[in-house]
Amino acid sequence: MRRRLRDAALELYGEHGFDRTTAAEVAARAGFTERTYFRHFADKREVVFDGEAALREAMTDAVASAPDLPPLGVLRAAFLSVASGAEEDRERQVHQHRVICSAPDLQERAATKAASITRAVAEALERRGVPRGLASLAAACGGEVLQRARQEWLAGSPDSLAVLVATGFADLDLLLHGGDAHDGPPTAPGTSA
Amino acid sequence: MRRRLRDAALELYGEHGFDRTTAAEVAARAGFTERTYFRHFADKREVVFDGEAALREAMTDAVASAPDLPPLGVLRAAFLSVASGAEEDRERQVHQHRVICSAPDLQERAATKAASITRAVAEALERRGVPRGLASLAAACGGEVLQRARQEWLAGSPDSLAVLVATGFADLDLLLHGGDAHDGPPTAPGTSA
Repeated sequence: MRRRLRDAALELYGEHGFDRTTAAEVAARAGFTERTYFRHFADKREVVFDGEAALREAMTDAVASAPDLPPLGVLRAAFLSVASGAEEDRERQVHQHRVICSAPDLQERAATKAASITRAVAEALERRGVPRGLASLAAACGGEVLQRARQEWLAGSPDSLAVLVATGFADLDLLLHGGDAHDGPPTAPGTSA
Repeated sequence: MRRRLRDAALELYGEHGFDRTTAAEVAARAGFTERTYFRHFADKREVVFDGEAALREAMTDAVASAPDLPPLGVLRAAFLSVASGAEEDRERQVHQHRVICSAPDLQERAATKAASITRAVAEALERRGVPRGLASLAAACGGEVLQRARQEWLAGSPDSLAVLVATGFADLDLLLHGGDAHDGPPTAPGTSA
């Protein structure tokens, strides 16, 4: 039921615009009453993000069950595991992203949701024993990697989200240590920058 | 003149609250007319951030003149150089931070200013030849390090901002590679990512 409401909302917001669509219209398109709609979603924005709570849970579960690695290695493993299930849902997520970009109110809510996932990921790292300050720095930087990978993915990259996430973490290492990370000192002649 | 207006604004916003202070009152406290005020600042918020443009320029100059290092090494050197001049201004910045935290309107403007500095830093890295995607990832992660260091500094850390910035970049390395990078693993033996 929630999923049907979400899909109806994405259709209508895409066709007529977020501002020009009412909750009653979304409910009707999905075959429900407005009252039913508001039993499931607090407002016109929330319906677009149905699935975010499940995503947050999948992310924190993946952090909890990742192998014993330094914190950003934990996040790499966790994000790869969550990303590997994303391919079949790409088309819907591209459409959702387009709808979100079309309305500042939705972009604002998306930023709030992203911040909430970052906090949840930091807390999941803390539960693994990572000190609070380090956990929040790791979650913020890991979140930047994930967000960039997801943007490329939604923009139609030929790579899978998992590949883009792996590339992003490799990039982070490169940014710190240069191309030399594994072969020599980072400041040797001829390095990047 | 701008500095006198800024100091008057910080005083009055601190004493009476941002919402209950008018631009005319700020101008009067500084010994100017409201008209003079609006020749320098577009609104009641902007005055609090006088100096941000100079800071942005100092940051991008420092990025431009940093030694040849991987991008996050460049940012470390640049931020250390800018931070080393900050100690004598700490008291004023603590007061400014308290005023900003007291008003959501000011917090919003502070977030916009921080995003603008992050973009400027990314562009300065691009001018050094760092590809756009890597430059923006480096600026975002370096920005997280700097923001956290600054928060600890403003909260009264006994360390200087420069020491906190250096610690933050060391933390980032630790998060990627664990204690392994230098002394030993933080979690289990032999694991680093």
